[in-house]
Formats: sequence, C-alpha cells, structure tokens
Amino acid sequence: MTKPLDPALPIRHVTPTKVVAVRGDQLELLDDLVVGEEPLEIRAAGPRQQPVSVAVTMRTPGHEDELAIGFLTTEGLLHDSGDAGIAGVEYGDPGYMAEPDDAIVVRLTKRFDASKVAQRNFVATASCGICGKASIDSVALRCEPLPKGIPFVSRSMILSLPERLRDAQAAFERTGGLHAAGLFETDGRLVAVREDVGRHNALDKVIGSRVKVRELPLWDRILLVSGRVSFEIVQKAAMAGIPIVCAVSAPSDLAIRLAERLGVTLIGFLRDDGFNVYAHDGRIDLRDLMG
Amino acid sequence: MTKPLDPALPIRHVTPTKVVAVRGDQLELLDDLVVGEEPLEIRAAGPRQQPVSVAVTMRTPGHEDELAIGFLTTEGLLHDSGDAGIAGVEYGDPGYMAEPDDAIVVRLTKRFDASKVAQRNFVATASCGICGKASIDSVALRCEPLPKGIPFVSRSMILSLPERLRDAQAAFERTGGLHAAGLFETDGRLVAVREDVGRHNALDKVIGSRVKVRELPLWDRILLVSGRVSFEIVQKAAMAGIPIVCAVSAPSDLAIRLAERLGVTLIGFLRDDGFNVYAHDGRIDLRDLMG
Repeated sequence: MTKPLDPALPIRHVTPTKVVAVRGDQLELLDDLVVGEEPLEIRAAGPRQQPVSVAVTMRTPGHEDELAIGFLTTEGLLHDSGDAGIAGVEYGDPGYMAEPDDAIVVRLTKRFDASKVAQRNFVATASCGICGKASIDSVALRCEPLPKGIPFVSRSMILSLPERLRDAQAAFERTGGLHAAGLFETDGRLVAVREDVGRHNALDKVIGSRVKVRELPLWDRILLVSGRVSFEIVQKAAMAGIPIVCAVSAPSDLAIRLAERLGVTLIGFLRDDGFNVYAHDGRIDLRDLMG
Repeated sequence: MTKPLDPALPIRHVTPTKVVAVRGDQLELLDDLVVGEEPLEIRAAGPRQQPVSVAVTMRTPGHEDELAIGFLTTEGLLHDSGDAGIAGVEYGDPGYMAEPDDAIVVRLTKRFDASKVAQRNFVATASCGICGKASIDSVALRCEPLPKGIPFVSRSMILSLPERLRDAQAAFERTGGLHAAGLFETDGRLVAVREDVGRHNALDKVIGSRVKVRELPLWDRILLVSGRVSFEIVQKAAMAGIPIVCAVSAPSDLAIRLAERLGVTLIGFLRDDGFNVYAHDGRIDLRDLMG
C-alpha cells in the first residue's frame, strides 16, 4: 500500500547530531537525527534565456526538481499549455550556494515571462540572506554577541515553561490553529505571549512588544515557541538578544548550527518531564546530573 | 503568573464557523471557532517620507504594531540607535486591503533606507496576491473550476488516510521535524508522499511529482497534509485541481473561505476516528448518517 521514501533521497534530509538529553533526574548524551534545512533558489528560463530568479525558499534537501516545478505550477507561473511546457531542470550553483543542488533552473519550452514574478506579491515570512552558510555569517555580523553563560538557570524553571505557556494561551485552546511564542523572565515569570497562524509572526509580535517599551537587548529573557525551531526562529531571537530559545518540538540542523555560532542556548522537545539541549548547555544548571 | 490575551485583541483573531463533524457513526452540525488569517502589509517611512512597502505577511489579526515593529527589528531593518528610532505607527489602507488594520506604516525618527529592503532576500513561502478578498478573487480567476460532486468517496477511506500517511513517513518518525503531504487515489491508495521542513514545500514537491508525469489536473486525487491548513495550502491544491483537501490539524478562516469559493472539499482534524468538514461536504458519502 505504502512505499518508502525515494531511496535516492540525499542523506542531507536528515543530519546526525549530539544531544544533551535531560529526563527527570537523568542526563544522557545521545546521538540524534534532526531534519535538514537548506535554502533553494528557484530559477526559470526559456530556451537560450538567462535564468530568472523566482524565489528562495528554506527547504529540506531532496526532490528539488519536484519542488521547483511544483512551485512554478501552484504559483501560476507556467504557461497554461497542456504539457506544462517544461523541457527539463538544471542544477546550477550561481556562485554563492553551499551545495550544487541549492540552486535549480527549470527550463521551459517557451520564454519565461519575468514580469510575472515582479507582479506577484510573495509572502515574506523572514529573510534567509542568500544561503545557509552565507546566512549564518550574515546574521552573525548583524547580531551583537550574547554574554557567555548568562543567565544561568535551573532545570525546574525550564521544565515549568510549557505549562506556563499553555495557561497563557487563550485562543489556542479554542481553535487548535495557532502558534504561540512566550517570553519569560529567568525565574519563569511570563513577560508576554502572542499567538498567530505564522510562527514567525508570533515571535515578531512578542519581540515587537519589548521594542515598544525599549527593553532590547533581551539578555535576561527566555523564549518558548510552541512548534518547531527553524533557522529563522533562532535568527529572530538572536537579533533581539534572547540567549535561551526553547521549543516544544524539533529543531532543524541549520537552526542548531546558527545557535552554535551565535552562542544561543537551544532547547528542543521541551515537555513537562524533560528536554533536549542542542547547543550551548552552559546556561542550564546540570551540575548535580554530571557524573 | 500568566496573563490573559490582551482584551483589546480584535474579534477577528478567531472566526465562528459551522462544521459537519463525523465521529464514528455519529454526525453533528457544530458551531466551531477557527483562527483568523489575513494579510498585513508592513511599510516603513521616516519623517515626511513616502511609506516604503517592506513585506506582506499572512497573519492572525491583533497586535499589528508589535508585529510590524518586531519584524523590522528582527530583520535588521531599523537604525541601530539605542531607542530603535520608532516615532509611532499609522494604520492606513493603501486602497486594496479588506480591513483598515491590514496595512500599517511604522514611522521612524530618521529616513528609512529603502535600499535595505531590496538587498534582502525574503523567503517566499507562497503568494498571497495582495489581500484576503483580492487573493480569493485572484486565485479563483487562475484556477480551472473543479467538477462538482466528483469524486464521491467513503468515510472509511477518508478515515484510513492518517495511518497510510504515517506508514509512508520514514523521516518524520526519526526527527519529528518534518511536515508531510500525501496524495491518494479515491480508494485510498498512496500516490506520493513528500516531507519537508516547510509545509508548502512538501505540497509543492508532491504536486511537482505529478506535473513531471503530466497528471494534472488532479481531479481524482485526495490530499492529506500533516499540519494545519492555511490559505496557501488550499490555493496550491486548487491550482493543481485537487478536489479534496484533508489535514490532521485545524484550518484558518481564510482557508475555509477560499475552499468554499473554489469548490474544494476541506476536511480538518482528520484522526483515525473522525473528522470535521469545513466546506463542500457533498463529495463525502454521509447518506447513512443523515437523519
């Protein structure tokens, strides 16, 4: 009935990582797998036409041709001919991508109308700079360095955050359709919670509420997001100076690499009874668990 | 410890809706709440400067000032002065938005450098046209109408889809970090499954795999996505001709309105023992449950 994922899927769709796993009073160093996240620049061109950049999207490596062709289709950027007018795809590094398949050109049988791209209002969720490695460098350049080892917080405070966030989420309970971002003091007291269909929006709202009262940089604040942690979540938190980022669900590999580089403590799978630390565990008091 | 959501939060952050709820052999017509989803155009300007459009993002109404200020902050688009350089915000309909607060101008104390926007590569997740209502019209114009009442499928087939999708998700089990999109035949057989950190990417990959073998329009296919259903998911499905869209989690109000307009059957909260139908239930065999 079902079939496995394409065996040709490149290994980069998951990345092995080391995790400091806290479970009750146990501490383990685990080998874990996290999902791959890399930018893909989608370009389109007709015969003998210079490729036109259509979009840059953060994606999990694998099936790049399908992603590019599907994107052009569902965004209405292809000709309406019955055969979709696709001649083939070319992988091509325009010179600034980390991997050859981080850029793809969809070759069409007819000239690609570049004005279609300009006419569209693509929704901006967040910036990614240009590519994974370039992005990390670019974010690092724009962020003020975080103080090392500060704040130094207890495990019990971290473990209390999911319940505190749930208590504060009024709308989520009713619709099940909202992402939440909560900002906390180092003793666990809630500073602000915001909810949104977009996880980046919930975080931007929380940070914006602090900009309004001139509290940045947020060097003594802890963030908890309800979902997963992408590159963009760590980027936005770091831009606001938040040193500890927690999530109820999983981080991507690029989120971990950015957190490592920027000195952000990154916690995933934060539940009431445990959590995983993916980067900079020095801000969490684990002394009594160390062998 | 916690505080409720801002009481000033506009009522549009949730929207009442009618739901056809299937629970085992019971059918109920329920009053439900779904999360609000509307575009917000973020603009910035210095004193006596014409506002510069920075981004359009789909968001849940409420706290628009925080969202706009937070976005400009976390994207590094503000001046680096200690006070962030914000003079105030103005709500302003540039003429094409559905609601006055669907467009906001952040007034800065110094001139806004428009070249900063052009230099950034905002990640395109999907197009939203310009605004909610305009988007629905725009998508409707570009989509071929779906055949009415076709396909006509059984409840048991719909109920079988989550398990079929889980069986096919290899990477998800290992990382917990992936969204999945599965395409099925009308008898529930899996056609294709794709996974990605981005839910739109997973769907674009599935659709792209069908474009490659020239199967569009997908008038006899059923889609299941692992997460929530936003406007963009319904838009992309409809552009590919998919008549039945199912999700494990909740839809937004704009997703429901678009599905209603385009004739797409929209199912949410699809679990092994039941589901909710938010639009066009005529494609699902509910005859034995009708009183």
